[in-house]
Amino acid sequence: MSATRVQPPHGDQPETAAGGTATLAEIARAAGVSAPTVSKVLNGRGDVAPATRSRVEELLRRHGYQRRRGSVQPAPLLDLVFHELESAWAMEVIRGVENVARDEGLSVVLSESAGRLTPGQTWVDGVLARRPTGVILVLSGLDPAQQAQLTSRDIPFVVLDPAGDPGEDVPAIGATNWQGGVAATRHLLELGHRRIGVLGGPTGMMCSRARIDGYRAALETAGIAYDPGLVRLGNFHHEAGYAEGLALLRMPDRPTAVFTGNDLQALGLYEAARELGLRIPHDLSVVGFDDLPISRWISPPLTTVRQPLTEMAEAAARLALDISRGREPSTLRVDLATRLVERGSSAPPPAA
Amino acid sequence: MSATRVQPPHGDQPETAAGGTATLAEIARAAGVSAPTVSKVLNGRGDVAPATRSRVEELLRRHGYQRRRGSVQPAPLLDLVFHELESAWAMEVIRGVENVARDEGLSVVLSESAGRLTPGQTWVDGVLARRPTGVILVLSGLDPAQQAQLTSRDIPFVVLDPAGDPGEDVPAIGATNWQGGVAATRHLLELGHRRIGVLGGPTGMMCSRARIDGYRAALETAGIAYDPGLVRLGNFHHEAGYAEGLALLRMPDRPTAVFTGNDLQALGLYEAARELGLRIPHDLSVVGFDDLPISRWISPPLTTVRQPLTEMAEAAARLALDISRGREPSTLRVDLATRLVERGSSAPPPAA
Repeated sequence: MSATRVQPPHGDQPETAAGGTATLAEIARAAGVSAPTVSKVLNGRGDVAPATRSRVEELLRRHGYQRRRGSVQPAPLLDLVFHELESAWAMEVIRGVENVARDEGLSVVLSESAGRLTPGQTWVDGVLARRPTGVILVLSGLDPAQQAQLTSRDIPFVVLDPAGDPGEDVPAIGATNWQGGVAATRHLLELGHRRIGVLGGPTGMMCSRARIDGYRAALETAGIAYDPGLVRLGNFHHEAGYAEGLALLRMPDRPTAVFTGNDLQALGLYEAARELGLRIPHDLSVVGFDDLPISRWISPPLTTVRQPLTEMAEAAARLALDISRGREPSTLRVDLATRLVERGSSAPPPAA
Repeated sequence: MSATRVQPPHGDQPETAAGGTATLAEIARAAGVSAPTVSKVLNGRGDVAPATRSRVEELLRRHGYQRRRGSVQPAPLLDLVFHELESAWAMEVIRGVENVARDEGLSVVLSESAGRLTPGQTWVDGVLARRPTGVILVLSGLDPAQQAQLTSRDIPFVVLDPAGDPGEDVPAIGATNWQGGVAATRHLLELGHRRIGVLGGPTGMMCSRARIDGYRAALETAGIAYDPGLVRLGNFHHEAGYAEGLALLRMPDRPTAVFTGNDLQALGLYEAARELGLRIPHDLSVVGFDDLPISRWISPPLTTVRQPLTEMAEAAARLALDISRGREPSTLRVDLATRLVERGSSAPPPAA
């Protein structure tokens, strides 16, 4: 456990040792504090003055300090963080992480970042203190300082279905959203639809951009021009599906089919169609995205693009565990396949 | 922190000190082990021989050992255990516990007892080791030995919506299930229905028994005899609602209205009605139970008995925190009110 490497020269800014690592003692000396104080900062303890703490954090980051793998036994916990805990979508993800946790004798710590795309510092402090075996972030990213904090403590993290671009060096599990958008749109084209609308999710989320890009690619390869007037954006909830769906369906030359950003939006679109007296699929075809359990139970059952959420969550949990055990993955980014599930909400367009 | 009470005489079975408490040293002496070994057992450490461990547990239980409140700082965690992590029902509960956790700077450890109504010993060992501030059990009970283990470590636990009878001395938060059954059935009676069927949940769950008892009470006070032929039981899932719903609706003298054990069963019943060409509410009225978000989004929107799941979960979390802080609650059992929410699935019966 003792440092056997050559100590760098004294000074305010000691050189980083080869390989970008520095010992705890070196960090302590540079910060002008004791080694136990650096240790407290590493372990997220509250009893360090804020100024000292941020000085130590800055030095840890600058020196690329990294706790030696295996030098500290992690707690048998997996941290799972959601952007928002809404809907059956989150439940599918929770179930996947629980499956792996149960197999591995771990418990799951569940947090919500309260609608922010980056969890707050309170959450990071909690993670440093409880030292989980791994962290899975759902639709949430970490800012660079937070990433550095987890890395320096040797706490591996994996991003599931990233909202933004998590960066090439961040392990991430996603789904083939773009291909899903292509498949949904091709299905409607093959049924004979030419005027196909889209309800998109938030543009800040890469997954919803990818779905719309897939829609556009399928249209254009079929020789149909992309019409921005047929694209309405909203959040991923029922309410947006209803409101934007009404707007689409009230157009003078309304679409005969709509591809929605997710299944909850499709439910809202169903309601908008009922309100306008349009029958699904006779007057309007609908294709959703996700394949939540509810999509089988509504009337008509929803044609949708299946996103394997539970399997994605399992893969993310396993990836975090692999990294924690020193098995570096061959690739840091894996997208699991989506596939179209045909049900009763899609049919040929009404005869003109 | 040192024991200031008079030591009991030596012996194999030392007397329990006044108030049913014994010191750690007394337990160690009786078990023939060192005090640190007893401490390891108390903290759920794995490095104690199983025989020693069960001897110590037995002595802890026999002496009613209880860790002094506040003698150990609990971890900033709330443990939340589900019988099964299925459906939007669980999400409503998770959201309530997360609300309280966020307010109090705690994190939530989520577990599933994998379909068993009592969590396994692995879970208990994990709880003893991580020492949460409180435990919330959803539709799951603890067996007496598990209760004793948590009590001896001063880890408070609260049962949410108990499946069985949790015992008078177990803190529990429920809902007025019986009143909900009365309200649902009275609503259908007031609309003019006389032949009202019921899809019940598992009879092992007190909540589903209470709902059916409420149904029966409403019928009988209206002068209508309870007909066991109109009662079908199943689990709380869509599939049971569909299968038992088909059985009810295929009866020669089928009911004109059905009260279902929960909203998911109602969704299954919707499907059964569609399959038989029965229109809701024109040919068949349906009343559900829970008021999950989905009940507003289906067609027709579901008349249902609202169970305030999020508020119940918040109350359970607050109760556990109160107990952990030494504020003994004035009552150990609280049932929050259910109320009928009228929507589009209930109407007068078709003219005979």
